[in-house]
Parts: sequence; structure tokens; C-alpha cells
Amino acid sequence: MSLIVQKFGGSSVRDAERIRNVARIIAETYLKGNDVMVVLSAQGDTTDDLIAKAEEINRHPSKREMDMLLATGEQISVALCAMALEAMGLPCVSLTAWQVGIHSTTQHGDARIKLIDPDRIRMELDSHRIVIVTGFQGVDKRGDVTTLGRGGSDTSAVALAAAFRADLCQIFTDVDGVYTTDPRLVPNARKLEEITYDEMLELASQGAQVLHNRSVELAKKFRVNLEVLSSLERKPGTKVKEVTKVEKTNIAGVAKDTSIARVALVGLEHTPGIAFQIFDLLSRHNINVDVILQSIGREDSKDITFTIHRKDLDETLDLLNDNKATLHFDHIESDDHIGKVSIVGAGFMSNCGIASRMFEALYEAGINIQMINTSEIRISVLLNEEDVNRAVKAIHAKFFD
Amino acid sequence: MSLIVQKFGGSSVRDAERIRNVARIIAETYLKGNDVMVVLSAQGDTTDDLIAKAEEINRHPSKREMDMLLATGEQISVALCAMALEAMGLPCVSLTAWQVGIHSTTQHGDARIKLIDPDRIRMELDSHRIVIVTGFQGVDKRGDVTTLGRGGSDTSAVALAAAFRADLCQIFTDVDGVYTTDPRLVPNARKLEEITYDEMLELASQGAQVLHNRSVELAKKFRVNLEVLSSLERKPGTKVKEVTKVEKTNIAGVAKDTSIARVALVGLEHTPGIAFQIFDLLSRHNINVDVILQSIGREDSKDITFTIHRKDLDETLDLLNDNKATLHFDHIESDDHIGKVSIVGAGFMSNCGIASRMFEALYEAGINIQMINTSEIRISVLLNEEDVNRAVKAIHAKFFD
Repeated sequence: MSLIVQKFGGSSVRDAERIRNVARIIAETYLKGNDVMVVLSAQGDTTDDLIAKAEEINRHPSKREMDMLLATGEQISVALCAMALEAMGLPCVSLTAWQVGIHSTTQHGDARIKLIDPDRIRMELDSHRIVIVTGFQGVDKRGDVTTLGRGGSDTSAVALAAAFRADLCQIFTDVDGVYTTDPRLVPNARKLEEITYDEMLELASQGAQVLHNRSVELAKKFRVNLEVLSSLERKPGTKVKEVTKVEKTNIAGVAKDTSIARVALVGLEHTPGIAFQIFDLLSRHNINVDVILQSIGREDSKDITFTIHRKDLDETLDLLNDNKATLHFDHIESDDHIGKVSIVGAGFMSNCGIASRMFEALYEAGINIQMINTSEIRISVLLNEEDVNRAVKAIHAKFFD
Repeated sequence: MSLIVQKFGGSSVRDAERIRNVARIIAETYLKGNDVMVVLSAQGDTTDDLIAKAEEINRHPSKREMDMLLATGEQISVALCAMALEAMGLPCVSLTAWQVGIHSTTQHGDARIKLIDPDRIRMELDSHRIVIVTGFQGVDKRGDVTTLGRGGSDTSAVALAAAFRADLCQIFTDVDGVYTTDPRLVPNARKLEEITYDEMLELASQGAQVLHNRSVELAKKFRVNLEVLSSLERKPGTKVKEVTKVEKTNIAGVAKDTSIARVALVGLEHTPGIAFQIFDLLSRHNINVDVILQSIGREDSKDITFTIHRKDLDETLDLLNDNKATLHFDHIESDDHIGKVSIVGAGFMSNCGIASRMFEALYEAGINIQMINTSEIRISVLLNEEDVNRAVKAIHAKFFD
């Protein structure tokens, strides 16, 4: 007998028919003799509908009250799913994050899970009930409801799998696994049977929407066996684990991200600590910086170029301009019509031809590279936004056709 | 400075505009220097929508999961109301029943409040925040969500007013007070300035929809000053209190109830304890019996006639027939086309002409009386259902025109 965590996203529970489908998947797993813990997101458009309701009343509600409002979405999902399982005659119980005791920080809208109380769930599992838990949410030390931010339900599922040492954590989505690139863009993209945590992390942070980074990081830290699969088609998905079984001779995939902007501080003085000052300023305002590149400028000055999320561009420019006096730069250049294309794979270091094949594909497609950035298992290039899709197709063809 | 509890029903918070209206009423009370505790129901049709969602999945869900589902309705209301108050710059906090600690019995769908934990609300009031609490719900000893059944939000408001010794508990509805009878039926019905708890109790249990019995009982027990008023029109409502200031020379009102059915067990043996057996059987199945009348039948047997809620008729008949062998009756007669009309007033005992005036009005209207039942402050008659509205008009005219 195994303990299996199954997480279903919003589109998998969007209406009565989909909920019944989810209940059948859960029932099948349970009737094989497994203990089953289920984590659900809010139904389909529920979260958007609730946000619209809030906006009608207050354009800038407090995050505390927003969490209070949004947390109802998952509560509706778990109650309905329990009813579907009851209709099949299966013993089950729905639990909210506060009923479980999913303790989180107080950072409303983007809270972190600190600790999961095992008692209630353990009691329910010992009574052979299927346990259905609200994803995306927690409760802080005062008993206030928090939400975990983007990818929160995946994180809830992995955290529960870690806390109860589950044998497997299955993330059901509307795609049937992790692909070598976006199949909507490249029809002959291939589904990966296995992928490492590190590869998944790089793919996720490079724009692949399948799993959120936080959940993969948590899975890696606690060695949770993850599987990404479809709730609509019954076929094997992609397994995410520490080491994959075959030695890689190819990259794992091609990812793109067009939600970024580039900022360049031109003509910075050669003062020690200037980079620290810049990025400390941005981090104190919760602005995440991705690629950073420093180069020597004219006349003994230097330039620092970096990328950020596009939504943060206005705030970043304001912050930098407000601090021009202390940062001592000449002027700022920015571009929000850029995109990033990355290849990811565990075998880069032992396959030195990989990078040149990527650049060859771009050269053949006549695409200009603005910046290059590499990690042990990833190579990213910054391009004009309009070249991004063409670049993905060219690179994917070079490696997989 | 006073502590005031304000309760708003579902129609008072049904959309953004109504919620802003509610926020203005709350703000006005708070800005006069009062501590304010607000209790809200679910918005307009939310509860019905949630029930429809559940029925699509399971015709007979467990009451536990139904409570889990329905409790989201009030949580949405309190969060949105808090956002409306935030938009006005007022300090406030929304709290669910479990966050407050409104401890209840486990009887899902019809739970009773056992105890209210004062700590969290006291802390918020001490910080001069407006406290907005979900009505209709509680949390049981295991931490499961319960709902309080019909009239639950009124009960929540009165219970909070009692627990914190509030100076006033205002129940805002879509009518502006308690009337001498239903103004939709009798246009010249009059609004009562004051009414006693006992009169309100009799009116409520006789079908006046303004306040639910449980809340009035609780208000009476803890001497909570109640006021029923409109959330849409700013004018005085009806005060419900222990003793009203003027000596009554008239009845308080005329009420009707057409949701009842009559059951007669004919030809019962003269065995001691037979009435106990019958009504114990019904009470064990949560069937409430209202008027009971026992009479001598033919040949040394007796008949027992009683009224129940119409929805319980089928179950009652099944139960009685299943137990025919032990109850020893000859046959059952039942009628679900009856109605009840009642007059209520604290001065009955000292105004012996009241009953005869009521009967006179019915006689003049040519209406037949099936059964009569009286209490210290109420006289009820059972009539054919089609005579009920005519009876209310005739009686109201006799006493108030």
C-alpha cells in the first residue's frame, strides 16, 4: 500500500462533469488499496470572478481581505469533490488549510508554508478516508487566512507529499506531461518520459507553464517523486526525479519567455559595491532580476544590463531615477519588446557542441542575439520579441528533427 | 460609547451597490463613536447557487460537506464588506466563525451555538476596528464547519450581542419593521413601534418572516435589545424588548402560516402513554409538531389530531404506518390543504373580548374553523388553505380599521 498525493488544477474541476471525472481518477487509485490525499485548486474561472467582485467594490483592497475572499474558491472545490466521491459510496472528508493546520507566513497573497500539522490528516487516513485538501492556502499564526501566490496549489501538494512522506505526488493538468517545447507552437514537440528536478526548474523558470518553480524546488529538497499528467487522457505523464535512468544525448527542451523587459544603466562610475546597491534596492521592492550582464563602457565607466518581469518595468525605472544621485549613472536605456529563449538539459557540460548548435540554428534563421546567459544546465539568449517563436521552432528542429 | 451589533441579510448585500450601502450604515454608526460588530449572510442567491452546484453532483450529499460548501457564502460577504469599508478609509477586519471561535454542536445543517470565544473580537475592538463576522455558521469540537439552519444569521448576531453584552442588536432586512400583518396582503397594515419578546416569538412561529424564533428566544434569554429595521430606508424600525412602554389595548398583529399539514390518528385505544409514544417517535425523526388536539372518538376509542410542517407529511405518514402495530390506531386521515391564522398580543388575559372578536370576524366572512388552539398571548385557528388570506384581511379589519 502506498500513499499517493493527487493534485488537480482549476480546469480539471471546472464543472460537475470534470469533478466527476476527477472523482473517478481518485476512486481508481483508492480502490487499488492506496491511501489517497487530494489537493484541489478553485474551479475554472472562480478566482477571476471573485477578483472581479472585489474590484467592483475596491480597486485596492488589502491583501488580507483578498485572501479571505479568494480562499472560498478552493473550499467550494473540495466540498464538491467530496460530494462526488460520496455519490460513488467512497469514504472521504474535505479539509481546508486551517482545518489541516497548513501553517504559513503572514505575507498575504504570497505566503510560504512553514509547517503542516499531521494530526487531523493522519486520523482521517487511519480511518481509511480519502482526504481532500484546499490547495493554494494556509493559515498564519493569528489564524488569518493566507494564499500562497502563483503555483500555490502545486506547492501545497508537494508540501503535503513531503510532510507525509508520500510515495508519489501526481500533478494533474490539462497537458499530459512536459514537452520538449510548447506543442501549440511546435506541433512535433515530444513528451518527455522523465526529467530531473534541475531540468524542470530551469524549464519552469524559463517560461514552461507546467509546474511552478516553488513546487519543484520543494520537491527537490524533500526528494518527492513528482509526476505531471493529464486529468483527461489516461496515459503516462512525465516523471520528475533526482536522476533519470538513461544517459542524456540530447537537451530536455526549449523554453521561451516573452514577459520580460531589459534595463541598462549606462555610464556607471567604477565604484566598488555599485552592483550591490542597485540590486539591493530592487530586491527591497520585491523586484526579481533575472539575467545580469556587466560590461566596460566608454571612458573608464561601465554598463550594467539586466532583465526583469515586464510588469515591474515602470516601478524599476522610477526607483532607479529616484536614486540617480547615489547610483551615479549617466542614463537608463530600457526595452520591453524583448524575449528569452532557453535550452535546458542535464548533459551540457559533457556535450560541448550543444551551445554552438543552438547559435547555428539562430544564425541560419537570421535571428540576432542581444545577450547570452548560461548556467550548468541551461543556455538562454535574449532576442527581439518578434523573433522568439521563430527561434523556438528553429532550435527545436535543430535538436529534435 | 456603545457597542452595537448590526446584522444584514442576503438581500441587503446582494451586489456591490448594496454592499456599499451597508458600509455607509456601518460607517455612520462607527463614526458616531460606537464599537461596531457586523454580522452578514451570504449574498442574495449565493446559497441557492451553491445548492444547485451540489445537486448537479450528488442529490444527497452529506450534511458535513454541504456545510463546508455553504459556509463559503458568508465568507465572500464579509470579505467584500471589509473591502467596501477599507475603500472608505475605515479600519476593519473580517472574521469567519472559526476565526472568532463560534463553537457549536456537530449537528450539521442545524447546529446550535454553545460558546463564543471573546479573545479575537475583543482584541480587534480594542484596536478600534470594525469587526465583520460570518453569520449562519459555527465550528464544532473537531474543527469542522457547521451551519446553524434557518434564521441562523439572526441567531449569530444575537449570540454575539449576548456574549459581548452589546447595547443594541440591529437586524436589518428588506422590510422596515414588524407589521400588524403582512403589508403585501393588507395594504393598511401598521408598523409596530415596539413589541415584546413573547409577542415577537408568537408572531415568528406563526409565520411572520421577519425574525426567526431561535434568535428571539436567545434575545429574550439574555435580554438583548433588538431592533428590526430596513437597510434601504433610514427610518426607525420596530424595537423588541422585555416590556413595552404603553399598556396594550389592542393585539400586536395577525399572522398566517400555509406551510402546514394536518394529521389525524383515528380510533386509538385508550392505552396510557399512547400520546407519548406517537410524539416521541416523531421527535426522534426531527419532525416538529405544532397544534395537538385530542378528542373522544366512537366506542371508547380516541382521536389525536396534530399539525406538522407540510414538507414532513410523507415521512410522518410512513413512520406512523410502519408503527401501526404498536400504536394501535384504526386509520390515518391527513390534509395538506389547510392553513393557520393567529392573532398575537400581550394583553389577552385581561381582554376577554379578543377571542370573540376574532371569531366574529371569521363568522361574518363565512369562514369555517377546523381547529382552535390558544396560548397566553396567542389564538390560532386552522382553516381551509383557500380561506387564509380572506381570514387575515377580515380579522385585521376588525381589530385595526
